[in-house]
Amino acid sequence: MKDISQLTPKEIRTLIRRAKWDKPTAGMAMGYAQANLVILPQKYAFDFLLFCQRNPKPCPLLEVLEPGKYRTEFLSSDADIRTDIPRYHIYRKGKLEAIVKEIRSLWKKDFVTFLIGCSFSFEEALLRSKISIRHIEENKNVSMYITHIPCKSAGVFQGPMVVSMRPIAPDQIVKAVQITSRYASVHGGPIHIGDPLAIGIKYFKKPDFGDPVTIKEGEIPVFWACGVTPQAVVMKAKPDLCITHAPGHMFISDILNEELAVL
Amino acid sequence: MKDISQLTPKEIRTLIRRAKWDKPTAGMAMGYAQANLVILPQKYAFDFLLFCQRNPKPCPLLEVLEPGKYRTEFLSSDADIRTDIPRYHIYRKGKLEAIVKEIRSLWKKDFVTFLIGCSFSFEEALLRSKISIRHIEENKNVSMYITHIPCKSAGVFQGPMVVSMRPIAPDQIVKAVQITSRYASVHGGPIHIGDPLAIGIKYFKKPDFGDPVTIKEGEIPVFWACGVTPQAVVMKAKPDLCITHAPGHMFISDILNEELAVL
Repeated sequence: MKDISQLTPKEIRTLIRRAKWDKPTAGMAMGYAQANLVILPQKYAFDFLLFCQRNPKPCPLLEVLEPGKYRTEFLSSDADIRTDIPRYHIYRKGKLEAIVKEIRSLWKKDFVTFLIGCSFSFEEALLRSKISIRHIEENKNVSMYITHIPCKSAGVFQGPMVVSMRPIAPDQIVKAVQITSRYASVHGGPIHIGDPLAIGIKYFKKPDFGDPVTIKEGEIPVFWACGVTPQAVVMKAKPDLCITHAPGHMFISDILNEELAVL
Repeated sequence: MKDISQLTPKEIRTLIRRAKWDKPTAGMAMGYAQANLVILPQKYAFDFLLFCQRNPKPCPLLEVLEPGKYRTEFLSSDADIRTDIPRYHIYRKGKLEAIVKEIRSLWKKDFVTFLIGCSFSFEEALLRSKISIRHIEENKNVSMYITHIPCKSAGVFQGPMVVSMRPIAPDQIVKAVQITSRYASVHGGPIHIGDPLAIGIKYFKKPDFGDPVTIKEGEIPVFWACGVTPQAVVMKAKPDLCITHAPGHMFISDILNEELAVL
C-alpha cells in the first residue's frame, strides 16, 4: 500500500468506504479541505441553517445537502456522506448512543446534511508561512475552551462560542491574523488575542476540550472560533436524532484549502 | 424640515413609518447600508435560505428573521419590517398584485424575512476612492443583465445570475476589484471583467433591467452579481405569496457600510 499520507482524497474516501480506515484524518490529503459533519432531521434544518448563517465564524458552512441527499456536489463529485467518514457518532436527544463506521442502514429521506469548515485548512496556511503550531509540534489535540461569548441563537439552537487557542510569538501575530482572515469559510481571523479571562476563560491551564500545550516565554494566546461550537449547540438542543463525525474523523473533500481563501 | 439627505437612518425610518416618504432611498443616509427585502411563507424558507447560502455573491444575506418576527436585531434595534420600507410589492404566484406602503394588515405568523445586501454599499466605497460611477454621474439606474451563468439551485429556487455593469477605466480596474472584494456581504468582487458575450450577454447596449449608460473610449465593462437575482429567482418559482421592496425603495439600516467590510 502507498504511504497513507500520499493518498489522494478519492483514494482515502474509497478506503474509508470499504471500512479499511477508521482512524483520525489529521495529516491526510494535505492541502485538501476537511469538513465537520452534522446531520439533522428536516424539522430542525431551517433553524440550524439560520444558526450557521448568524454565526459564520464558529459555523462556516462549506456545503449543505437538501433533505435526503447524501451525495455532495461542491466538496466532491463522487462522495457518499453515508459511508465516507471514518467514524460517526449517533446522538439521540443529545446523548451519544452509538459509534459506527457507516450509516446506510440509518439513513432517512428527511436527513439534512451540513458540512462545516475545519481549522486544519488555515493551520496548513500558517505552517506554509512558517508560523509554528504548538499542538502539532507536541503531537497533541488543539486546546479548546468554552467562552462567555454568546452565539446568536436561532430557534432551538443557542449556546456559547467555543474557541481553539494557539500560542503565537508577538512578532508573528499580525501575520497570523492576516493569513487566517483570508480563510473566512474556515473560521477566518481570530476572535480574540490575549487575556483569556476577557472572553470568560477562567481555567486557562485546563482546556474544556483537547489538550493543554506549552506556552513559551512571551507568547500570546490567540483564539479562533471553533467547529466544536455547532456540535455543542446541537447537543444542548437535544434533537430526536443527530449524526456527526467522531472528533478528528473528518470528511475529506476534493477542494484545496487555497480555493477557500477569500483574497 | 431638515435637508432629507442629512437625516439619520432612524429619522428616515420614522418618516417612512408615518407614510411621509414613499420615494426611492438612493442617496439617503449616506454611509449606512441599505437592504433588499424578501418575505416568504415558512414553507419556502429553508429552500430560499439554502439558495442564498449557495449563491452568496448575488444573494448576500445581511439578516434573516425567524418566522413571524418583524423586528430586526442586527441591522437596527428599532425597525419594524412591516412599516419601515417606502413601498412594498405584493406578489401572488409570481404576479405583482399590489403596491402598498405598509404590510401590517397582511402580516402572518409564518412569514420569514430576508434582508439582502445592496450594491449601494460598495458604490459608496468606490466613490470615496475617486472611482467614478457612470450611472450616478448620468443620474440613471445601473445597467443590469441576465447572464447565462446558472445559480446553484436549491429546492424550488433556480435561475440565471443577474449582474450589474459599471464601465471602469483600465487603470482603475485593479482598485475597483480590491475595494469591492472587501465587501463580501454586499456582492463582493466582480464576477466578470470585459467581454459581455463571455457571460451570455448578447445585447450589451440594451440592458435587461435599468438604463444603458455611456461607455467612454477605452473603458472596460465590469460586472458584479446583482441583488435582482434573488427576486428574479423567487418570481420564477411562483410562491403562493412573496412580499418584496419596490425597486430602489430599500430598507435603511443602522449599520455603516464600513462595518460590512471584511478586511
